[in-house]
Amino acid sequence: MMRIAYFGPQGTFTEQAARALAPGADLTPYETIRLALAAVREGGADAACIPIENSVEGVVPATLDGLSDGPALVAVAEAVLPIRFSVLTRPGQAEIRTVASHPHALAQVREWLEANLPDATAVASSSTAAAAVGVVEGTFDAAVSAPVAIEHYPLEELVTGIADVDDAQTRFLLVRRPGELPAPTGADRTSIVAAAENRTGTLAQLLAELASRAINLTRLDARPVRDSFGEYRFFIDFEGHVAEPRIVDALSALRRRCQLRFLGSHPRADGVPATVEPGAGNQDFLDAQAWVDAVVKGEHA
Amino acid sequence: MMRIAYFGPQGTFTEQAARALAPGADLTPYETIRLALAAVREGGADAACIPIENSVEGVVPATLDGLSDGPALVAVAEAVLPIRFSVLTRPGQAEIRTVASHPHALAQVREWLEANLPDATAVASSSTAAAAVGVVEGTFDAAVSAPVAIEHYPLEELVTGIADVDDAQTRFLLVRRPGELPAPTGADRTSIVAAAENRTGTLAQLLAELASRAINLTRLDARPVRDSFGEYRFFIDFEGHVAEPRIVDALSALRRRCQLRFLGSHPRADGVPATVEPGAGNQDFLDAQAWVDAVVKGEHA
Repeated sequence: MMRIAYFGPQGTFTEQAARALAPGADLTPYETIRLALAAVREGGADAACIPIENSVEGVVPATLDGLSDGPALVAVAEAVLPIRFSVLTRPGQAEIRTVASHPHALAQVREWLEANLPDATAVASSSTAAAAVGVVEGTFDAAVSAPVAIEHYPLEELVTGIADVDDAQTRFLLVRRPGELPAPTGADRTSIVAAAENRTGTLAQLLAELASRAINLTRLDARPVRDSFGEYRFFIDFEGHVAEPRIVDALSALRRRCQLRFLGSHPRADGVPATVEPGAGNQDFLDAQAWVDAVVKGEHA
Repeated sequence: MMRIAYFGPQGTFTEQAARALAPGADLTPYETIRLALAAVREGGADAACIPIENSVEGVVPATLDGLSDGPALVAVAEAVLPIRFSVLTRPGQAEIRTVASHPHALAQVREWLEANLPDATAVASSSTAAAAVGVVEGTFDAAVSAPVAIEHYPLEELVTGIADVDDAQTRFLLVRRPGELPAPTGADRTSIVAAAENRTGTLAQLLAELASRAINLTRLDARPVRDSFGEYRFFIDFEGHVAEPRIVDALSALRRRCQLRFLGSHPRADGVPATVEPGAGNQDFLDAQAWVDAVVKGEHA
């Protein structure tokens, strides 16, 4: 059975994503993203499920740092989950004076709390699941948690779908040690991290290599390198799969300009096919290479 | 007296930054970054002091969103503070079983806690100052807080400088309603937010406009637009001041390509002078414009 490490505790959105990405797998929660990744690197798990970005909060810095530091890992699958929050209470709870959750979750349900529980005190906890545990133990009257939490704790769902922005979503990755890659599907995402010298125009040059091949970016993040304020690593996601000639050509061009780490090619959860412009398809790259090869051999000019 | 709204509560690093940016001003803490910005927009304060980026955690999403939504505000000054954490306890506290702090602060002192207080439980609080209040009230035995917190609470500093990465820094902005800009100094930073169509190569084109004028980027962040997963706004910081001809030329070029909001030009806290390459200085832009103007007038060819 496949062993999956995930960013815990139990009863969070990441557990929900791990169940979706690896049905029937043996799931083990880890206290931090870094520990979940370490479990895969050290062989204690076959893969790790971690959050990468949220439509409201943006990227998850611990994931970007965890993937770029230490032995290489590659993303082989992704899941996008709608972030639906539920209010959980002890069965029969009459009055709600305290509502606990992770600060990010509290931020996403603030308007609902003000309208529906104006007299309750919002208390920050270390995770949405820790808030549920606090309710079980009687420390708080209610928790704002992932719906999956009621499968682990003897609590009642008072109401669900209370996020102020209805369609908030989080994207999760399943990462493994380098090995065989998932097959290309035509609707894939490739991720890299580029570490370039801090020189005027460096990032513009890197992006021009992608743009000149009509490769569409899907995400770009600049993360400061720890210990060095103002030095950056660029996390770049784009459409396509490293098994495609057009992507091979782009990665080679980028590799000539900077330090690269490959973070994986895998199908997009939304199934959106890659944009391919006239003259920039895989066959165009193959044909052009064949033409040049023939010129080199003196077969034509 | 100048009235400064800052992201509170009292006793945090942001208060420390506000004191540095506006000595002697009347300081008022606000519960969220958004409320501090609203106070300036509505005229209840003359300026707001808010964090913009941290060398370990990256950008502060609430600040980016707060500056790009709602009426325009511009940054007129910045401060970079070393983030030094102190452990605060009640005077004479013998044993430490619980240590509270904001989750981000706990993440930055984890190694110190494991080595020095291995038996203490780390508890997440809503801010480093809220943790100090919890210690005063007896809820926790110790707080990991900003050094400035002991000026507000009857606590003792057990130890300071416990961050795992010694030189972590946070940059803070002082923002005002649009008006007279600070004078250019030769070591300035200009900030904009660009909202562009999601089309292959758009960001590469925007950055090429800066690169072709040899303008050095200092930060780039892509933030999803709330409600729309995959649609982005680009927050771009670069060297130079909008009063310089080379920057005027670049901003005009960007404005032709996308929606822009100007977020301010102000002196850099580190005093690093702008990189100016041969042929890309302000006089070069003025000379070139004069040459073209003369050609248009038929004065030479």
